[in-house]
Amino acid sequence: MATILTLAGDGIGPEIMTQAIDVLNAVNDKFALGLTLESGLIGGVAVDATGEPLPEETLQRARAADAVLLGAVGGPKWDGIERSKRPERGLLKIRSELGLFANLRVAKLYPQLVNASSIKPEIISGLDLLIVRELTGGIYFGEPRGIRTLENGEQQGYNTMVYSTSEINRIGKVAFELAQTRAQAAGTSAKVCSIDKANVLEVTELWKQTMIELQQAQYSDVALSHMYADNACMQLIKDPKQFDVMVTGNLFGDILSDEAAMLTGSIGMLPSASLDEAGKGMYEPCHGSAPDIAGQDIANPLATILSVAMMLRYTFKQEVAAQAIEQAVSEVLDDGLRTVDILDRSETGLIQVGCQQMGQAV
Amino acid sequence: MATILTLAGDGIGPEIMTQAIDVLNAVNDKFALGLTLESGLIGGVAVDATGEPLPEETLQRARAADAVLLGAVGGPKWDGIERSKRPERGLLKIRSELGLFANLRVAKLYPQLVNASSIKPEIISGLDLLIVRELTGGIYFGEPRGIRTLENGEQQGYNTMVYSTSEINRIGKVAFELAQTRAQAAGTSAKVCSIDKANVLEVTELWKQTMIELQQAQYSDVALSHMYADNACMQLIKDPKQFDVMVTGNLFGDILSDEAAMLTGSIGMLPSASLDEAGKGMYEPCHGSAPDIAGQDIANPLATILSVAMMLRYTFKQEVAAQAIEQAVSEVLDDGLRTVDILDRSETGLIQVGCQQMGQAV
Ligand SMILES: CC(C)[C@H](C(=O)O)[C@@H](O)C(=O)O
Ligand SMILES: CC(C)[C@H](C(=O)O)[C@@H](O)C(=O)O
Repeated sequence: MATILTLAGDGIGPEIMTQAIDVLNAVNDKFALGLTLESGLIGGVAVDATGEPLPEETLQRARAADAVLLGAVGGPKWDGIERSKRPERGLLKIRSELGLFANLRVAKLYPQLVNASSIKPEIISGLDLLIVRELTGGIYFGEPRGIRTLENGEQQGYNTMVYSTSEINRIGKVAFELAQTRAQAAGTSAKVCSIDKANVLEVTELWKQTMIELQQAQYSDVALSHMYADNACMQLIKDPKQFDVMVTGNLFGDILSDEAAMLTGSIGMLPSASLDEAGKGMYEPCHGSAPDIAGQDIANPLATILSVAMMLRYTFKQEVAAQAIEQAVSEVLDDGLRTVDILDRSETGLIQVGCQQMGQAV
Repeated sequence: MATILTLAGDGIGPEIMTQAIDVLNAVNDKFALGLTLESGLIGGVAVDATGEPLPEETLQRARAADAVLLGAVGGPKWDGIERSKRPERGLLKIRSELGLFANLRVAKLYPQLVNASSIKPEIISGLDLLIVRELTGGIYFGEPRGIRTLENGEQQGYNTMVYSTSEINRIGKVAFELAQTRAQAAGTSAKVCSIDKANVLEVTELWKQTMIELQQAQYSDVALSHMYADNACMQLIKDPKQFDVMVTGNLFGDILSDEAAMLTGSIGMLPSASLDEAGKGMYEPCHGSAPDIAGQDIANPLATILSVAMMLRYTFKQEVAAQAIEQAVSEVLDDGLRTVDILDRSETGLIQVGCQQMGQAV
């Protein structure tokens, strides 16, 4: 019997989580998956209740669980508190403590939503790209870091971007293997674009070199290309369909995956997975806690619901159940149901629904 | 008598520079500006000729000149050479040696080119935003940096992102003052959005805090907002017109300014200025050396020509001559002249021209 720890978090977290749990319970029954659900505290609500953004109890239960489903963390309420207690620290700590080094973010265009994007339909129709972001290293965790006072009395802030060969190999493997799987499923040939800034940063020069060696040694069937982060940011706008799998470090991955998500115009639709070396994972929507719309029942629960599908696929190897959820999401879109973030007011026949109604429809 | 040093560089550099020099000579005559032009070597051509991407002679003449006009540097030819000799190092070194800490990049949509963009016209029409990027600090220049061998035998790459209060104040002032000038010209109120990743990186926490204090102390008439870099990357796609002046560090500025440029669909049109504390500057197009199209007379010279206009405005305070160039560019666009990068084949009445023809038309 497997256990899932749900961590609703802050802002719209609780409302989207409620809908995702309902969906999870429904497939659990229907496919007799035998999953047990537990819940715990993370982020601002955890700070309020325990003083810590990731209480020890939550961490222990996350370690014991087979998978974690996360809502979202953070909000202006906790902006003023001491750095080490901020909600985001809870998120960074759980990623790091559980060794969730591989963050998979899919930017996929739902054909029903092609008009919700700022980008012209012909540039993005059919878009389906996967960003593999390294999640437990790089400048997010590099030491030394801090703010110090210099001899002349002024202050200086500093962080360290650092990667070792083994960290780069580990994430490279994930990217190459996912590219192989995707190519097989699509009947195309596998390709990976590695993003760096090797013309300026030594750490990413090592990144690039290590990717080249890994590809030559073990993945010669995968076409490997390289792009500077600034150019990648441009190419994503100019011609995003040139990419299939992109692999990059923690900071560039943060920026580029958000950009890619926004291209689809439906960041409220996009799930993500963060996996450890054994395939255990934490699943969460790509969007944030959106405190401005929390509690109004207008949030889009689909990204969280689709995160459940990813969980069933990657951690529990329940492809049929995963597809059933994805199919259900596609059907509610076909039926014209839209939360406000994906509502195109120029289109007729659409029905604006709230978070709860959308979740129940799925 | 003032001197301008022209550095054509690599790839399409020489051909776009030739056109820009012709335009510069024309306004020099017409407005009796008394400018003297010299030329020098930088980048790959300098490596080939002298072994150094920024020869001492070029640096000395750049120091002596009142302004520098740069084409572009780099190309695959020099990819394999030792790190310290790569063309890009020449560019980074001249920025640093001349103290050109303030990089101004305008992302402006030319109404004649609204269809050249991937973005829907209604999202970008009228777009005119200015990105102020810190150019001589941050992770580009931070120490320690390098690649070392760890005790366990594997390699580790590392770079340091670092900013001190004085560096942040200096670039903040430039941004606030440009926002004031722009607001005055447009009859609107001044606003600056500062981009950081203060939820993760201490160095950008200091950045944010310093911007807040600077605004409170000296620029209370400017509205200051803050955005995380990942969100900014999304917001630029979703609603770029929400921004007027953005200010950020070297690395985020590199990425976001390229993204903003690509929004307009006409990166071949966008000039940039890099200024020191006295207003002396280096001016260059935002695009790169495009080695794939070099020597074919198809490059777009307008970004370099518009860089000349920026030079006349910022370094030589020749507003009338600057506007004459900008006006001429606008007129050739009105006349339907297009280099291939900005040619919209679905539009009728346009005339495809080469680099030289475009330059001469201006
Ligand atoms: C909340 C923040 C710490 C986080 C990150 O930067 O990783 C978020 O932006 C994300 O991408 O999951
Ligand atoms: C060529 C490269 C070193 C440079 C940079 O990263 O600053 C370029 O991308 C730019 O933005 O001017």
